[in-house]
Amino acid sequence: MNFRIVAKFLGLFFFFYTAVLVVPLLVALHYREFDVAQAFAAVILFAFALGAALYLRMRKTTQQMFRKEGLLVVSLGWLLMAAIGALPFYISRWIPTYTDAFFETMSGFTTTGASILTDIEALPHALLFWRSFTHWLGGMGIIVLFIAILPMLGAGSKHLYRVEIPGPSKDSFMPRLRHTAMALWGIYITISLAEFLALMACGLDWFEASTHTFGTMATGGFSTHSASIAAFHSPAIEWVIILFMLLAGINFSLYFQLIRGRLYFLKDAEFRAYLLFVGIIAFVIYLTNTIGGAMATGAESVRASAFQTVAILTTTGYTTADFDAWPALSRMLLFGLMFIGASAGSTGGGLKIMRILILAKWAWRSIIRTFHPQSILPIRISGMMLSQEMEDQITGLFVAFVGLFIAGAATMSLLGYDFATSLSASIACLGNIGPGLGKVGASQNYAFIHPFGKWVLSVLMMAGRLEVYAVAVLFVPAFWRK
Amino acid sequence: MNFRIVAKFLGLFFFFYTAVLVVPLLVALHYREFDVAQAFAAVILFAFALGAALYLRMRKTTQQMFRKEGLLVVSLGWLLMAAIGALPFYISRWIPTYTDAFFETMSGFTTTGASILTDIEALPHALLFWRSFTHWLGGMGIIVLFIAILPMLGAGSKHLYRVEIPGPSKDSFMPRLRHTAMALWGIYITISLAEFLALMACGLDWFEASTHTFGTMATGGFSTHSASIAAFHSPAIEWVIILFMLLAGINFSLYFQLIRGRLYFLKDAEFRAYLLFVGIIAFVIYLTNTIGGAMATGAESVRASAFQTVAILTTTGYTTADFDAWPALSRMLLFGLMFIGASAGSTGGGLKIMRILILAKWAWRSIIRTFHPQSILPIRISGMMLSQEMEDQITGLFVAFVGLFIAGAATMSLLGYDFATSLSASIACLGNIGPGLGKVGASQNYAFIHPFGKWVLSVLMMAGRLEVYAVAVLFVPAFWRK
Repeated sequence: MNFRIVAKFLGLFFFFYTAVLVVPLLVALHYREFDVAQAFAAVILFAFALGAALYLRMRKTTQQMFRKEGLLVVSLGWLLMAAIGALPFYISRWIPTYTDAFFETMSGFTTTGASILTDIEALPHALLFWRSFTHWLGGMGIIVLFIAILPMLGAGSKHLYRVEIPGPSKDSFMPRLRHTAMALWGIYITISLAEFLALMACGLDWFEASTHTFGTMATGGFSTHSASIAAFHSPAIEWVIILFMLLAGINFSLYFQLIRGRLYFLKDAEFRAYLLFVGIIAFVIYLTNTIGGAMATGAESVRASAFQTVAILTTTGYTTADFDAWPALSRMLLFGLMFIGASAGSTGGGLKIMRILILAKWAWRSIIRTFHPQSILPIRISGMMLSQEMEDQITGLFVAFVGLFIAGAATMSLLGYDFATSLSASIACLGNIGPGLGKVGASQNYAFIHPFGKWVLSVLMMAGRLEVYAVAVLFVPAFWRK
Repeated sequence: MNFRIVAKFLGLFFFFYTAVLVVPLLVALHYREFDVAQAFAAVILFAFALGAALYLRMRKTTQQMFRKEGLLVVSLGWLLMAAIGALPFYISRWIPTYTDAFFETMSGFTTTGASILTDIEALPHALLFWRSFTHWLGGMGIIVLFIAILPMLGAGSKHLYRVEIPGPSKDSFMPRLRHTAMALWGIYITISLAEFLALMACGLDWFEASTHTFGTMATGGFSTHSASIAAFHSPAIEWVIILFMLLAGINFSLYFQLIRGRLYFLKDAEFRAYLLFVGIIAFVIYLTNTIGGAMATGAESVRASAFQTVAILTTTGYTTADFDAWPALSRMLLFGLMFIGASAGSTGGGLKIMRILILAKWAWRSIIRTFHPQSILPIRISGMMLSQEMEDQITGLFVAFVGLFIAGAATMSLLGYDFATSLSASIACLGNIGPGLGKVGASQNYAFIHPFGKWVLSVLMMAGRLEVYAVAVLFVPAFWRK
């Protein structure tokens, strides 16, 4: 491990982060929330000093960044970003304990959307804006944005990019990585703008339209209302959010191909599976809820079923209904969706549909091999053949993911929480969803959880967002060796 | 698929099965339960006729049995064995519906021990004996016994053996497979005899000593009492059963090596992990229960914690306490143990400790490869190197196992059962444990489950006992092609 190069890149990253923190400061000034503005100003100075201390000491390092250093820059970068991003909540005393402030901020950046706030409406605008803005930065990846904006990162940036981009295929789809990063953020900003305008057209003001755009496009889930999207009582807004959650859950490289004039959507196995999942599960949930008597038939129930299916599968976690009160099958299906997640290369979390498809093909192949042991059956997806390396990487990730899920559930049980709460809190954080079942259900929050549990869940959120490995390596002694 | 050879082997198997059915007939005659004796006699005639019809038509087939045919003989053999074995319960009207009789018998042969009986003590001795005897036959493998006893099976028998022996390493440890099968059954009978004598010494009569020996040594879990082992109110009996459950959960090839004078126990990574698991989890459960106030401190609580840990980890499923009423962590740990199961090559179910160790090493390796992508890291277990083929087979099995678990849990939810009941009923049957949590908890039974649910759970039990593949292939069209 070359710590000099890690320090240099982290220093650069904190300069950049300082600039990001100016946005909520401006919002605070706009709303004349001067206490909060002071808190942001103080944090900006602190982040700048930290960046300067790291960068100025190490700027003369001309060594190359390799994979190891890239992993550490991203994981430390995310940890410090949440640690510093939590300070405005804590300094302004709107979140009285640092544990809670850190949990809320990590939940924001990782696009989880699990909240410890019990009275969201009471918070100043600037803090609510910052809380939603962390979603948007974390969704497409703040480090990807950093790569897109700063030209001086050089060849090492591919190691940063690979760690933060979600999904099994992490290749740059343009000749230069920086251009890929710019294209991704360009598409992200464009679709976000479209949602912002659509929500404005539905009657929201710029503050609510922007915060909910952040929450949707990042598949985050923070709202400025305790009742989440249900607070608006507006079918139009719900449909707009269903549509944009769906769009955010698609692999962004498909949009890029679309700009290039290539319509790959229906050729893409993952995209087809994604639509199929949403269609079938929403339909089954609608049937279960109406037959089970939890809902009347009609448009409202269709919308509620579609909303919750899309919100959970894309790992957004917005709610329009208390799905924890739905019949057993609906709850179990939503619990199952939490593991699946959205498409690879989207802003969504979970294992990703692409990996689920590959795992299913993997299991099918091992069944075929029971009676055809010698057969060579490469796994194909959308016509591409998977390398042995990638197969191993995906099954390894699956095992590690399940292991983390179990560890999280065991920790929650240790703290005395019931079966459904423990299991669902673990996957809702690891899968970056937000609400779970039981005591962390749709109409609940995470405030009551023991501080130790909050730290463990924060680690799970980060592990989920950075796809396990970037967090797991920190616990491997060999990783730290020079 | 060569159906002639399948029919011939199944015919032979049913002759053998006829002989097995004579044992409960003799018990019925001993206890003068003539109604039940008649039922057994009728079933014996039926099984003999079925065997004759299959064998006599096909006996001239001189073709070889290959892997495909071996798979089908075992899976059809098990299906028919349970279907026929259920008849005495049904004909004698002690289990009024055939669904229930089939569930109970499949639960017996697969050593699951999940019961639909609500008043066990009311049943005639011969039926209770048969119910426990199915455990004992299924535990070490009735087809392994068939191979051990019949010399005419020839080279094809290795395909039968491989399907029924649990665990990833399925090689014969003696030059001739038949001798391996004889050695395994010899060891099994010897340890069973030891337990039988120990239970007699504790004051049980021959009937209770034998039925509980069957339940223990097969890691089954059927008892002749509704209250399971708690009915005896005897610490001595509980300790004897803890000891023999532990012995039954060890890889039987270690006993074989012991006879040969080689003490491999402590060199075996799985054996060490097994003892470690039992020790640590029993200790944590003891602490949780006493601190949580569910139990007083002292010898009785130590015994109850150890008993339940061993009973669940070895997938036996006997109970001395209502563990569903224990604190959250204890319940979650027991739920977790259900997935792990006992050692490979033991009579226990679940994924097997050996596979868990390999999966953990697999995940660890994929973490190392995150920063050392080119490194070649073969997975070693007890000093042996795993082949790529075996690695794939184990991860494939894991994915298929998780898939079946989810399908089972979704089915239970579809039928309206709550979260804990649905998840734990699925794993309790797939892992061949027996009792789960919630409505299928320690003090409950499976009687209330909808018939459709019982059939699905029966399939899960069989898939669990035959390690997924032998059941999964039946759903692959290519498997059936000539």
